[in-house]
Amino acid sequence: MLTLRPATPQDVPHILAFIRDLAAYEREPDAVLATEADLLRDGFPADESKTPRRFHSLIAEWNGEPAGFALYFYSYSTWEGRTGIYLEDLFVRPEYRGKGIGKALLTKVAAIAVSEGCARFEWSVLDWNQPSIDFYHQMGAVMKPEWLGMRVTGEALHKLAAQCVTELVTK
Amino acid sequence: MLTLRPATPQDVPHILAFIRDLAAYEREPDAVLATEADLLRDGFPADESKTPRRFHSLIAEWNGEPAGFALYFYSYSTWEGRTGIYLEDLFVRPEYRGKGIGKALLTKVAAIAVSEGCARFEWSVLDWNQPSIDFYHQMGAVMKPEWLGMRVTGEALHKLAAQCVTELVTK
Repeated sequence: MLTLRPATPQDVPHILAFIRDLAAYEREPDAVLATEADLLRDGFPADESKTPRRFHSLIAEWNGEPAGFALYFYSYSTWEGRTGIYLEDLFVRPEYRGKGIGKALLTKVAAIAVSEGCARFEWSVLDWNQPSIDFYHQMGAVMKPEWLGMRVTGEALHKLAAQCVTELVTK
Repeated sequence: MLTLRPATPQDVPHILAFIRDLAAYEREPDAVLATEADLLRDGFPADESKTPRRFHSLIAEWNGEPAGFALYFYSYSTWEGRTGIYLEDLFVRPEYRGKGIGKALLTKVAAIAVSEGCARFEWSVLDWNQPSIDFYHQMGAVMKPEWLGMRVTGEALHKLAAQCVTELVTK
């Protein structure tokens, strides 16, 4: 018996466990620096007018047990002039696979995207993860091979920021 | 004389012109469906507690004339437990190139990312755009070749959403 519901602050320990399990599946078991306090602050702010909400999450339960989750944030397409949904994480615990839970989560986030007038629903997949690539193609997704992702993090980000010599004029 | 400032609602016509010029540069001159009303609604909401702000933008002026812009939104890294900045658009008008305006915009957004505790500063580049790829590498960015971007849009998105049979339980 599958239930999908929006995550609550009480789900933070489960969300962090899902994030860690997904990182291990992605062959980066030590990559997760996030803490429960981080997820509580960024996903469940007490006052959104002061602290923006940085992500949204759905929890899938199977017979009342947390079985998987989806976590997303809102992107923006300047071509469409519309917000979009970027699915950061989608994960189903191994013991709950084969029950359609991943598809239920993916289609639910798609339905949220449509109901909110989003132009795009996007995510990323690791290039060796052929089962997931096949699944996403079946679901109607296409690959964007002409676009390369670039990233600056850590010390390189601080070095880049330090090259900024132009003040922001706010008058 | 270069000035950088946050965009205001009065900049919307300039922003739309920049978006169209950038789309033409990206060999997709007819891809821009966005209107001034879209950008006003999504970038400059009257009450953010009711209508979330979907993007942020900086305007670069050269001797008081709009010369370029950067447009970004906030992403989320579940590994880092931190928000990040995704740079959707960076553009400098051809007649203003070679003056360091693109670098000024890029480093300014990096400085904003650092000042706001972002773990990542990311963007995408077209695979044939070698001058930009070289520039970004010089700036300390690295490519994420193992991650493939996937996307569902338009009719495929509606078809995916229509497969959603699981109600969201909100109690």
